[in-house]
Amino acid sequence: MTAPEHPSRAAEGTTSAWHHSHPVRIYWEDTDAGGIVFYGNYLKFMERARTEWLRTLGFDQEGMRRSGEGMFVVADTQLRYLQPARLDDLLHVTVAVVERGRASVEFAQDVWRGDTLLVRGRIRIGWVQSVAATETTEAGLRPGRIPQRILAVLPEPLAEHPSKPSAAAQASGAQDTPTATPA
Amino acid sequence: MTAPEHPSRAAEGTTSAWHHSHPVRIYWEDTDAGGIVFYGNYLKFMERARTEWLRTLGFDQEGMRRSGEGMFVVADTQLRYLQPARLDDLLHVTVAVVERGRASVEFAQDVWRGDTLLVRGRIRIGWVQSVAATETTEAGLRPGRIPQRILAVLPEPLAEHPSKPSAAAQASGAQDTPTATPA
Amino acid sequence: MTAPEHPSRAAEGTTSAWHHSHPVRIYWEDTDAGGIVFYGNYLKFMERARTEWLRTLGFDQEGMRRSGEGMFVVADTQLRYLQPARLDDLLHVTVAVVERGRASVEFAQDVWRGDTLLVRGRIRIGWVQSVAATETTEAGLRPGRIPQRILAVLPEPLAEHPSKPSAAAQASGAQDTPTATPA
Amino acid sequence: MTAPEHPSRAAEGTTSAWHHSHPVRIYWEDTDAGGIVFYGNYLKFMERARTEWLRTLGFDQEGMRRSGEGMFVVADTQLRYLQPARLDDLLHVTVAVVERGRASVEFAQDVWRGDTLLVRGRIRIGWVQSVAATETTEAGLRPGRIPQRILAVLPEPLAEHPSKPSAAAQASGAQDTPTATPA
Repeated sequence: MTAPEHPSRAAEGTTSAWHHSHPVRIYWEDTDAGGIVFYGNYLKFMERARTEWLRTLGFDQEGMRRSGEGMFVVADTQLRYLQPARLDDLLHVTVAVVERGRASVEFAQDVWRGDTLLVRGRIRIGWVQSVAATETTEAGLRPGRIPQRILAVLPEPLAEHPSKPSAAAQASGAQDTPTATPA
Repeated sequence: MTAPEHPSRAAEGTTSAWHHSHPVRIYWEDTDAGGIVFYGNYLKFMERARTEWLRTLGFDQEGMRRSGEGMFVVADTQLRYLQPARLDDLLHVTVAVVERGRASVEFAQDVWRGDTLLVRGRIRIGWVQSVAATETTEAGLRPGRIPQRILAVLPEPLAEHPSKPSAAAQASGAQDTPTATPA
Repeated sequence: MTAPEHPSRAAEGTTSAWHHSHPVRIYWEDTDAGGIVFYGNYLKFMERARTEWLRTLGFDQEGMRRSGEGMFVVADTQLRYLQPARLDDLLHVTVAVVERGRASVEFAQDVWRGDTLLVRGRIRIGWVQSVAATETTEAGLRPGRIPQRILAVLPEPLAEHPSKPSAAAQASGAQDTPTATPA
Repeated sequence: MTAPEHPSRAAEGTTSAWHHSHPVRIYWEDTDAGGIVFYGNYLKFMERARTEWLRTLGFDQEGMRRSGEGMFVVADTQLRYLQPARLDDLLHVTVAVVERGRASVEFAQDVWRGDTLLVRGRIRIGWVQSVAATETTEAGLRPGRIPQRILAVLPEPLAEHPSKPSAAAQASGAQDTPTATPA
């Protein structure tokens, strides 16, 4: 129930793996007057999936935030919307690490309804720490290295993942060239 | 008041033009427990700016939707988060057409606080029409060509625009380091 | 896992029943810069709980909406915020019918974290049907009676329910008199 | 442009005053699949109006939050939904102080489209301060008195205000019938 029904078929001819899959039900709050899910909300669904995956790895984001250890921040998002979702739909959002650096981690995240791919995403996140105010600067957030105890637990990145938005476009024969990826 | 204070400085060495700029004030609803604006919300701010720009061009989206003429749908979004915004900030969101086809239009959209660039975005939109249910298919949305009366009014795309997220990263000398600090 | 841990203790000295309980996890999207859940979001959580409960009763809201049968609309909401929720919290939202009329149904809905009551709510909903445009009026929504097939399945209202916001205030010894309920 | 067009007519036979009025434009993000504004979003619009009004009084909420002085929290909300708003609508949200205590302040807030009253609200807010963690308790929020410098600036409460939801219902002759039609 927490994974697309036919992953092998869905990812035909490509690698089919992911590190986590999370179910998301669509409610009125998620839809807009077009009768479909408001496109901005898929970033929320992908965030929920990453959060649940981090929880399974033993990480407590609220604890890290309140203790001052720091928190993840999102640095880049790329989403390609292929099919709309609607009220009452049950979706599945996948999480796959595709790049793992000391300053940032990149995820491939797809949104599925059964074996229909709705949205392909790439999300890159970094790490920040809260900095107390000084005489000359106000309190703020300072980018930093992702804590070693987190990096140590993250899985090996998948070498090639189907959810590269531009690859998806080619696979689907889209003639409207997608914008280039930033990396 | 509806434009970055120093556009020429902000876009140093690049083209500085846009077709529209829209002010956005940050309220509690826009922030998250990190003390900054939730990154998914910038898609809303960019939507508001496009909507206000369409209004200045004479288009009534609700009228088009209810009359059955159709509506815009978002096909691709790419956002690069450079600096966070906070409660009470007054931002400006720019709109520039960078590609204008019969099936889709692409926008460069940036978010500024004064002359500080916070977020760079690329948004590609298409057009759909509502399709009534038939004996064999249920009601749905069918991609179509953007109505000629809309294309006729859209301005010439800007040849080169600063808000290409990947270009922004190079220009700022970013080395895969998310820069989320307010200072 | 889908009910407060100690309902009997929680509702000490009052009726303890509800018709449904639904778990809600708190994500970044739900919080604000105060470090707690944005108060407006509890209306979403209560909506999710009512939707899941309707689903268990066999109702398909999207199907009813698209077929033209109609949809529920919210007519009144009263919420009393007793304790804040935070990132990563696992909450439970209860649903109890407390009034069942042909024009509207009233629910008592509470939000719990374990056996701590966070929010008490009263939600009254009605029913509307879509009306096609005529020569003199535009398309709209017309209030109507709740379909008999729905009323027939709704359970008997609970005679006295703990979640009347004003009762909650008295029980907790609050000296800041809550505003009167509209009914 | 920042006030209902016919306040005297709108509030016929009652007091017509408010302390502030704030315009709100409806965007796609605000609507749901019912084709109307999602009811939970009116709490956001009322928050925006209170925030803009506080700004006119000279208060900087982000500054108070970051300096540790404290922040407002919402304690009670009561909303009665009389008519729906739709995409592209320009609304006006009023703010009137109706009760002013040391522990809480109560507002009457109405949402108008032209001279049509859409939503009546009562919002009661309190004040909290952040409390640092100690050896035995974790960091949290402690309810406190509203700072004297704020109370000193708040206007006299309006003795009788039209936006009491229950009064609104009686005045409009509502017989427990949700009135969600646009006509």
